[in-house]
Amino acid sequence: MNTIADYRIYPLVSPLQAVRMEAGQLAVTWGDGRLSPFHHPWLRDNCPCPDCVYAVTREQVFEIVDAPEDLRPSEARVDEGGALAVRWADGHASRFDPGWLRAHAYDAASRAERRRARARPQRWRAGLALPVFEHDAVMEDDATLLAWLGAARDVGLTQLRGMPTEPGTLAHLVARFGFVRETNFGMLFDVRSKLDADSNAYTAFNLPLHTDLPTRELQPGLQFLHALVNDTRGGDSSFVDGFAIAEAMREEAPDLYRLLCEVPVEFRNKDRRSDYRCIAPVIALDALGEIAEVRCANFLRGAFDVEAERMEDYYRAYRCFLATTREPRFRFRMRLEAGRAWCFDNRRVLHARDAFDPASGARHFQGCYVDRDELLSRIRVLERQAGERA
Amino acid sequence: MNTIADYRIYPLVSPLQAVRMEAGQLAVTWGDGRLSPFHHPWLRDNCPCPDCVYAVTREQVFEIVDAPEDLRPSEARVDEGGALAVRWADGHASRFDPGWLRAHAYDAASRAERRRARARPQRWRAGLALPVFEHDAVMEDDATLLAWLGAARDVGLTQLRGMPTEPGTLAHLVARFGFVRETNFGMLFDVRSKLDADSNAYTAFNLPLHTDLPTRELQPGLQFLHALVNDTRGGDSSFVDGFAIAEAMREEAPDLYRLLCEVPVEFRNKDRRSDYRCIAPVIALDALGEIAEVRCANFLRGAFDVEAERMEDYYRAYRCFLATTREPRFRFRMRLEAGRAWCFDNRRVLHARDAFDPASGARHFQGCYVDRDELLSRIRVLERQAGERA
Repeated sequence: MNTIADYRIYPLVSPLQAVRMEAGQLAVTWGDGRLSPFHHPWLRDNCPCPDCVYAVTREQVFEIVDAPEDLRPSEARVDEGGALAVRWADGHASRFDPGWLRAHAYDAASRAERRRARARPQRWRAGLALPVFEHDAVMEDDATLLAWLGAARDVGLTQLRGMPTEPGTLAHLVARFGFVRETNFGMLFDVRSKLDADSNAYTAFNLPLHTDLPTRELQPGLQFLHALVNDTRGGDSSFVDGFAIAEAMREEAPDLYRLLCEVPVEFRNKDRRSDYRCIAPVIALDALGEIAEVRCANFLRGAFDVEAERMEDYYRAYRCFLATTREPRFRFRMRLEAGRAWCFDNRRVLHARDAFDPASGARHFQGCYVDRDELLSRIRVLERQAGERA
Repeated sequence: MNTIADYRIYPLVSPLQAVRMEAGQLAVTWGDGRLSPFHHPWLRDNCPCPDCVYAVTREQVFEIVDAPEDLRPSEARVDEGGALAVRWADGHASRFDPGWLRAHAYDAASRAERRRARARPQRWRAGLALPVFEHDAVMEDDATLLAWLGAARDVGLTQLRGMPTEPGTLAHLVARFGFVRETNFGMLFDVRSKLDADSNAYTAFNLPLHTDLPTRELQPGLQFLHALVNDTRGGDSSFVDGFAIAEAMREEAPDLYRLLCEVPVEFRNKDRRSDYRCIAPVIALDALGEIAEVRCANFLRGAFDVEAERMEDYYRAYRCFLATTREPRFRFRMRLEAGRAWCFDNRRVLHARDAFDPASGARHFQGCYVDRDELLSRIRVLERQAGERA
């Protein structure tokens, strides 16, 4: 029996011991002593019966707004199968698997437990032990794939080695877990120096630390850079963990840090055929106030449009941020040899390139983007499958 | 002479009349009496000279963090060409076009002026005068294209008529202004009822009002739905303006409205091969507190994970929201005939479909998404080109 309509399995952490009907809610006691309230509309809303959830798509067809205003159970008990059985005053019956119920309980202890279990970024500085993976193992072995994707999520910077040097190799690699996020620079883009460059990326200049496409509302999540040929002098790669930079500023200059979180800045991409603009702060926080994203490419930034009274302070904050990204304590540096690829979280890790001498040899990189949504979905499915095998 | 490095032309709104050196800033007086302060770092940062901005890409190579800490001008004057000429203490010289400077001035009056000039969504209710455009005119005429894209931005719901009924027509239409945003449902997706549906969209059920892909961090911006064949009984389309719904709740139930803006909700897409989840509030506000996005698909929503103390109130808010979307005063309803297509802002407009009878005839729609970034970029370029021709 699986009454749970989301393809996952919910282990029985602790059995349901008792249920008590209270005003507006059921109070559930678990075998390990935990007490969880479940409000009537929450229970009715989550009824997994085939009238409420279409069995083929496993998507809800019932809508809570169709429940009676005076929604209430006439009976609630732990049934012979150990499930929570509820009969509603209007005759509808619901039955909740105890594993599912525990996994979704919202008493304070259960919520804190889930929060602790969430993956957390591992901050790093100059001394990073770079997570390195072999291309063929990633392509053939699901456990290696999962380890690589997990490092991309948690560390934000990984390298792949043993890559074929044919153009288009990235497309096969990406298909292993998701699909390419197309942008105004196309699907797979070629990074070479060009005479008619429409971006400083396509010159031989030094490129300062930056995120790609801050000009788009959603900066691409993962960025891939694959060296097909790299025979030039110069052009080494550098990376900093933008979350570590932001955190250092939060500790060392909290007032300036706050300005970077609050003040929206315009990023723009100038071109004869396009005019992309995005207005967003340099540091974005998530709903819990955690550092969630860094957005920064000085060469794509517009003039600051800040109240005159705050302009000097904002420049102090922005200069401090740029200066911090340049500090050697944060910077990881490595030349990308042909047959290797960087894969990093473009919304967290800033990347830079030294100037190179185009006369000293050939240099041809290919790049592409994949969104965090694909990364996280694939990690969840691989973990689910590993759990099913175990 | 064009010293401005962003492809746009900045008309001379008012000439520079005088400039005065003050502590930390230059105080500029304009011919029309406006007074604009420009702080030293702002001016140095925006220097458009070829040493600071690479002439080919028009991207900045100078970084403000490289300016001396005691940055200050030794001289500032309105030059013979009417530009602001600044000589810095370290010898660098900057020259600012008065049209550009006025367009970027950040005194309170200039900022308020820009804010008033911004495009604003036009809220609508049941009586909407649907903006309709002819496919061939959109494909051939830039002014029609601009009018259509402007309506998609400002009204959020448009219809195209006279569309060829060949599959793939949408791809040509989209190429007229941008490119398709691929998602976990592919590039162009086919909407038909299927026996093995992995989404309620691919059944013949009634689909309640919703936005597509709330399970992704960035919901797709524009949604296209093109009727190739529509011979069934039923299946009419309905739309509501989510911004109008949110605004009505802000006025009629402000406490419940606030909960919808504050409390993050999980949306999830359940599938054997994927596991997409996104946690975000139903109503999102922009940096200025304006309603910027609505995210809602009841059939893709996870169990609410809210503090127990707020659960009842949150259900009150959510029920109120769903009930409001169902009110006839908000609902625009129309059957989509073959050869026509909807184009609407999926992050603002909720769409619904009546149940249909698959035995009564054939029904085949194609759909795709395009992000707001492409829409807005294309509008800006078309406006720029129209301005150049004028």
